[in-house]
Amino acid sequence: MEGVTEVCERARRAAAAVARSSGEQRDAALEGMAGALIASREEVLEANGADVSAAAGRGESRTVVDRLTLTEARLESMGTALEAVAAQPDPVGEVVEEWTRPSGLTIQRVRAPLGVVAVIYEARPNVTTDVAGLCLKAGNACILRGSSIAHRSNNAVATALRRGLEAAGYPADAVQLVGDTSRAAALELMRSQGSIDLLVPRGGRALIESIEQNATVPYIIDGDGNCHVYVDAAAEPAMARRIVLNAKTQRPSVCNAAETLLVHKRLASDWLRGCLEDLAAAGVEVRGDDRAKKAYSAALDASEEDWATEYLDLVIAVRVVDSIDEAIQHINRYGTSNAEAIVTQDGDAAARFVREVDSGSVFVNASTRFSDGGEFGFGAEIGISTQKLHARGPMGARELTSIKSVVWGSGQVKE
Amino acid sequence: MEGVTEVCERARRAAAAVARSSGEQRDAALEGMAGALIASREEVLEANGADVSAAAGRGESRTVVDRLTLTEARLESMGTALEAVAAQPDPVGEVVEEWTRPSGLTIQRVRAPLGVVAVIYEARPNVTTDVAGLCLKAGNACILRGSSIAHRSNNAVATALRRGLEAAGYPADAVQLVGDTSRAAALELMRSQGSIDLLVPRGGRALIESIEQNATVPYIIDGDGNCHVYVDAAAEPAMARRIVLNAKTQRPSVCNAAETLLVHKRLASDWLRGCLEDLAAAGVEVRGDDRAKKAYSAALDASEEDWATEYLDLVIAVRVVDSIDEAIQHINRYGTSNAEAIVTQDGDAAARFVREVDSGSVFVNASTRFSDGGEFGFGAEIGISTQKLHARGPMGARELTSIKSVVWGSGQVKE
Repeated sequence: MEGVTEVCERARRAAAAVARSSGEQRDAALEGMAGALIASREEVLEANGADVSAAAGRGESRTVVDRLTLTEARLESMGTALEAVAAQPDPVGEVVEEWTRPSGLTIQRVRAPLGVVAVIYEARPNVTTDVAGLCLKAGNACILRGSSIAHRSNNAVATALRRGLEAAGYPADAVQLVGDTSRAAALELMRSQGSIDLLVPRGGRALIESIEQNATVPYIIDGDGNCHVYVDAAAEPAMARRIVLNAKTQRPSVCNAAETLLVHKRLASDWLRGCLEDLAAAGVEVRGDDRAKKAYSAALDASEEDWATEYLDLVIAVRVVDSIDEAIQHINRYGTSNAEAIVTQDGDAAARFVREVDSGSVFVNASTRFSDGGEFGFGAEIGISTQKLHARGPMGARELTSIKSVVWGSGQVKE
Repeated sequence: MEGVTEVCERARRAAAAVARSSGEQRDAALEGMAGALIASREEVLEANGADVSAAAGRGESRTVVDRLTLTEARLESMGTALEAVAAQPDPVGEVVEEWTRPSGLTIQRVRAPLGVVAVIYEARPNVTTDVAGLCLKAGNACILRGSSIAHRSNNAVATALRRGLEAAGYPADAVQLVGDTSRAAALELMRSQGSIDLLVPRGGRALIESIEQNATVPYIIDGDGNCHVYVDAAAEPAMARRIVLNAKTQRPSVCNAAETLLVHKRLASDWLRGCLEDLAAAGVEVRGDDRAKKAYSAALDASEEDWATEYLDLVIAVRVVDSIDEAIQHINRYGTSNAEAIVTQDGDAAARFVREVDSGSVFVNASTRFSDGGEFGFGAEIGISTQKLHARGPMGARELTSIKSVVWGSGQVKE
C-alpha cells in the first residue's frame, strides 16, 4: 500500500497549484465536484451498501451504522454543502486589517492558504465532502484519512470529487484519500512534520490522546462537548424551559447538546420542577445535586463524575447554584470549551457570563445546539475547535487559512 | 526548588484575577511596573553585573555577554517598552467581526485572554519585561523561564515587576520567574498540559526540536530567520542597493537580517557588481553561484548548504535567477517563513511575490529588518512566529488572545 510520504509529496505539489488559482476557479471546481458526486450516485450508494452490510454483519452499534449509511437524500445534501461552500466569500487574499506606520510602511494582514490539511475522521462519509470542499475553498490540498469501516464509501466519494476537480483543471491530488487505514499510517501522518500544515482529528478520546502525545505536525483538537446551560435568576421562565429542553433533547448524540443544567437558587423550586418534568417527559434521565432533588424528587444522585461527563445521550446532570459566580466557576472547571449558554434578561449578568466563561462559543438566550458551522453560516464545518489557539468553536474555510503580513514600502531601510 | 506544578497553579489563579480586571486597570499596572523597574535600577544593575562577570569569567562569547549586559539606558528602554505597551489599544473584548444569521442570532467574534502564557528564553533580560508587559496587556498571567546565565538579572527584574503589580492591586503571581533553570524543568513546562495555554520558545534549534518532540502544551515557534531579498528585473537600482545593504548589515546578528540575495538575471552584471562591492566594503563575505561570481569575481563559491544557512553574521549567499518564479521557488524551498523582500517597480511582480511567497512577512520595497514587533507598532514583541497557525510574523499583545464566539439570541432553539 502506498506510503504516507508519497501522499504528502503529491499533496504539496497540488497545494501549490490550488493556491495559485483564483477564487472563481476554485468555486467552479466546487460546483464541478458537487456535480460529479451526484453523477456518481450509483457507485457511491453501492459502495456504501457494501460498507453498511459489512458493519452490520460485524455487529456495529445502530448509531455507527446510522452515521455510516448514505441515502439519496444524504448524498444530495453532501452536494448541496459543496455548493453552499462555493457560495461563501473567498477567504484567500482577504485583507483582515491594514495600518500605516510613521515609517511610511503600510502593513496589511492578509489571509493565505495553509497548504496541506489532513483530517483523521470516523464513520461519516459526509465528512469527506465537507473537508474536501472547505479545504479547496481556502486554497489548500487535503489528505483524508477516514476509518476502515467507511473505506469503500469514502473511496467512491473521493473518486467522484477527484473527477470533478480534474474536469475543472485542478490536479486530482488536491483531494487524496489515504488507502491505509491502520493505526501506523495515522501515526505517520501525525509525525509528518514539514509535510502537513494542519491536522484536524475528528474522533474519540483515544485518537486525541494519541495526537497530543505523538503529533509533531500542527493540529487543532475537535474535542468533547460537555456543554452547559445556566438559567440565571433573571431568566424569562418559559424561554429558559424551551432552551433547556432543546439543548438537551433535540439531538442528544452530538457534541453541542447540553449535558449539565445549572440553575440559580431563585428558580430552584417551581420552575426547576417544571423544567425537569419536561425533560423526564422527553425521556431524559435526571441526575441532580441535593437541592435539585429537593425540587424534583424523582432525580437520581449526581456524582462528581457526572459534572465531568459528556453523556451524548438522554441524561442530564442538574445543579443549583447560589450565584452566577458559582455557575461560571463550575463551567470553567468542568467544561470542555465547546458551547455554553446563559438564559437571562439581565444585561450585566449576560455580559459577565460571555466575558468570564472560558469556552469556544457562549450563547445568550439561545440553545447550545447552534454551535455548528452550518448555523454560523460557513456552509459546512471542518470541526469544532475546543482549543484556544488559531480557532475556537465551529471552523469553516476561513479557519483553514493563515494570516501573513504584507508590507508595502517605498524604499524604507532601518536606521 | 519549587515545582513547576505549583508555579502553574498559582499562575492559573492569578490569570483569573487579571482576566476579570479592566483594560484601564491593566494599563495602570503596566505603568506601575515601569515605575517599579526604574525605582529598582540599582538592585537590577548590581544583579546584572554579577551575571555579566560570571559569564565573562566562564568565557562566554562577546555576543552573549553583550546581549546579557544591562546599562542605565537599556534599563530605561525596558521601562519605555512597558509604557508603550500600556499605550496600545486594549485587545481584550475587541469585537473582531459581527454578523447576523437568518435565525436572528447575532454572532460576534470577541478577543479574550488566553490564560497562562509561558516563555522559555535565552540571555536577554529585556525579554523579561517585554513578555510580562504584553501578557498582562492581553489579560494573561505569565511564566518566565530564562536561562541560568541571566538568572540574577531576571530575578531582580521580575521582583521589581511583581512589586509594581502588587502596588496596582494585582496578585504578584501574574508574573512568575521559574527558579529552576534545568532542562528537566523546561521539559516539565512543555508537558504541563492543561496548565499552560501557550508556550513560546525563544531559543536555538535544540530548544525548538525539544519542544517539537516533547511538548503536549500548545506552542508557537519563534524559529530561524533565513531571510531573502529578491531584486527583480524592474527594481529601482539605487533603492535595491540601499535595501540589500541595510537588510544584510544594519544588524547582522538578528533573525530578520537578510541571508540570501536573489537577483534577476537582467541586473546580474553592473548592478550586481556594484551591490556586492557595497557589501564587501561593509565587511560582508560574499558567496555566490556561478553567475554571481561572473559579476563579482571576488565571491567565494556558494554551496547547497549556503542556501539553507542562517548566518547571523556578515556573510551573504547570492544567486542569479532567470525569473520571479525561480526566486519564489527558491524562497519557498529554503526560507524559514520569517521575512522576505522584493524590490521592484512592477506592480504585477509585487502582487505575485506577496501572494506566492510562503512567509510570515513579505516586504515590497523595504528592508526585512522591519519584521519586528516594535516596527509593526506593537510596543514590544513576544517573538516572531515562523509557523502558520494562530499567528505569523511579529507577535504583540493581540497575538496573546484567543477569539471566542459570543452569540446573542432572543430565545432561539434549533428546529
